Amino acid sequence: MSLNSSEGCHAPQRVLMAPGPSNVHPRVIQALIDPLVGHKDPYFLDLLEATAGLLRRVFQTSNAATFVLPASGGSGMEASLINVLEPGDTVVIGAAGFFAQRMVEICERLHGVNVVVVPGEWGSPVAQDALLEAVREHRPKALAVVHGETSTGVEQPLASLAEACHASSALLIVDAVATLGGVRLPVDQLGIDVCFSGSQKCLSAPPGLAPITVSERAMQVIEERRTPVQSWYLDLGLHARLWGPQHSYHHTSPVLNLYALHEALALVLDEGLEARFARHCQHAAALGAGIEAMGLRQFAAKGHRVPSVVTVVAPGGTSALAVRRQLLEELNIEISAGLGDQQDRMWRIGVMGHSAQRANVMLVLEGLSQALDRPGATAAAAATYQ
Amino acid sequence: MSLNSSEGCHAPQRVLMAPGPSNVHPRVIQALIDPLVGHKDPYFLDLLEATAGLLRRVFQTSNAATFVLPASGGSGMEASLINVLEPGDTVVIGAAGFFAQRMVEICERLHGVNVVVVPGEWGSPVAQDALLEAVREHRPKALAVVHGETSTGVEQPLASLAEACHASSALLIVDAVATLGGVRLPVDQLGIDVCFSGSQKCLSAPPGLAPITVSERAMQVIEERRTPVQSWYLDLGLHARLWGPQHSYHHTSPVLNLYALHEALALVLDEGLEARFARHCQHAAALGAGIEAMGLRQFAAKGHRVPSVVTVVAPGGTSALAVRRQLLEELNIEISAGLGDQQDRMWRIGVMGHSAQRANVMLVLEGLSQALDRPGATAAAAATYQ
Repeated sequence: MSLNSSEGCHAPQRVLMAPGPSNVHPRVIQALIDPLVGHKDPYFLDLLEATAGLLRRVFQTSNAATFVLPASGGSGMEASLINVLEPGDTVVIGAAGFFAQRMVEICERLHGVNVVVVPGEWGSPVAQDALLEAVREHRPKALAVVHGETSTGVEQPLASLAEACHASSALLIVDAVATLGGVRLPVDQLGIDVCFSGSQKCLSAPPGLAPITVSERAMQVIEERRTPVQSWYLDLGLHARLWGPQHSYHHTSPVLNLYALHEALALVLDEGLEARFARHCQHAAALGAGIEAMGLRQFAAKGHRVPSVVTVVAPGGTSALAVRRQLLEELNIEISAGLGDQQDRMWRIGVMGHSAQRANVMLVLEGLSQALDRPGATAAAAATYQ
Repeated sequence: MSLNSSEGCHAPQRVLMAPGPSNVHPRVIQALIDPLVGHKDPYFLDLLEATAGLLRRVFQTSNAATFVLPASGGSGMEASLINVLEPGDTVVIGAAGFFAQRMVEICERLHGVNVVVVPGEWGSPVAQDALLEAVREHRPKALAVVHGETSTGVEQPLASLAEACHASSALLIVDAVATLGGVRLPVDQLGIDVCFSGSQKCLSAPPGLAPITVSERAMQVIEERRTPVQSWYLDLGLHARLWGPQHSYHHTSPVLNLYALHEALALVLDEGLEARFARHCQHAAALGAGIEAMGLRQFAAKGHRVPSVVTVVAPGGTSALAVRRQLLEELNIEISAGLGDQQDRMWRIGVMGHSAQRANVMLVLEGLSQALDRPGATAAAAATYQ
């Protein structure tokens, strides 16, 4: 491990089983070092259009406004909220985890926006009834929920939310950072108006980009704002014009990251969405079986677990952070500890994209077995692959 | 040129002589494909600290708050302005180009901020007297200027601005997107409070990152705000805590881009700042001599030209866009046309980082000579290297 500039960087080779970033496929690495061209080069403009086309297929949408923001997944969250909301508007947020709480924080910074939080217990989804009731009662501009809550490993059911929203002229905003490309999420079929993700999770591209799709209904709401969007950098109208046929200049695109994302999206579609979703489910089930064979408890409630993030309660007296460090140092495997209050009390294991492989599942279970001195995990996991 | 996913990308190999992005050094490409690690990996946290250390030397500052925003140079502009300004504040902006106008646009989106524009003619710097007078008259929270205006090729003199600002408790904000690492800009010596740049210009790292440095005085102003910064993503206090010793989680860092930037900064310092500044001046002078030997006029006024962007007025009847396209198609050289009203009337040629080489200068001049049928350019340029 050396950062001496004359020797260059020498990063350790990790098996990335945290909930992002995931390991990058060799084809994506190859794309990343294709020659750099300018952001107005005809080749690059063709690549933008090709990337948007692939992205529509992955989001399962026909939205014209489907593109990539030049910043991390969190910028997608901020862009989704600040473009839709204006002073005087109300937003309802279903909040049962760290990332939903971040939505609340973003909205509370907005001048004159009324934030209604529908709370839920960490480890379970937010109650559907409570969300529907809040939409009916507060008639918000938007309802925002997190599809796969990375802090808890819970999947929020999305069916019937759109009907309730659209019946009272609200938009449905969905955080798909932990799920796009790994967990079923047919955007148009579910009636989602704004959906955003990150490049580095189930898509397995390098971190740094935020794919996003915006329905016609939502674009119209944005275009009819009475006040300008507070951010120039995250103004979705400007990004739509960069990605649209006129390719209006907005910023210098992160060209190499887009080469890599384009290739990662092509890999998703080469595999096929259904096969990919099934693969994530299969490895999550194996990991879950191994976890339970060790006598450990999953943090997320049964029946509400998102396949891309398996969460595990650390046994009493065990420091989750110390075990994370041990796996990293001894086996070069990265898993995550908890977020917020849960930091030292749980593990979060990613089952994401190129990292979601049987060998990696076995390695994580073997590492945890050894660290906790609880055998039986790998055999139980192997049995699920029969 | 193929975007067929089964074949991967095959980007054309360009000589990048637009004012960004510039060509990437092989050592930077090598760093980019070092193995991906997680954003909380001890190796990566060490890399953040090493990168901040190198960046301080390139900015010539001792500011503790020196780091990299996970987004393009434009995000650095937005972050600089929105973190400092609150409702009720006044900002003075010196505006004689496209990028200064962007500062105006960003500030006009901010709720309750009074924007005072000190205009200047495109092709010349904004008059120093007018800036000083505006600071005295309006007693703003900040004065913002563009060091190297990429749209005009003009360098704004910065001496004595800081004294005037600090005498009336204003902060000095400087856009160094086109200059950092290529043109002399000793941040502390000049008394600059907030200075931002982009990764892809004179630093020659891939596009997608915005280096920034913030003085203690400015951090104090930010910490003492009465209202929260409107953006969570670009809240400089949160980024300072990610880059500070506690490394508080904010976003998933664009890990590979940071590997590349770290190596690019090491290359800048291996060459030495003074040698690098001299190299940019030398190639800009050669390019200018060649331009003038063709009977063409530089757009930027003599004595006010920034070495990193040479701007050329297209002769009457010549489409700047058509010539740009011809050079790209016939010689794989990228130069830029103008911005705004000037789009089809001028060229902007970058003299930036790894692209600033004698062979590239000759190739651009040869291309322009052929396209315009005006000989003599390369000989005149070669003479300047004697």
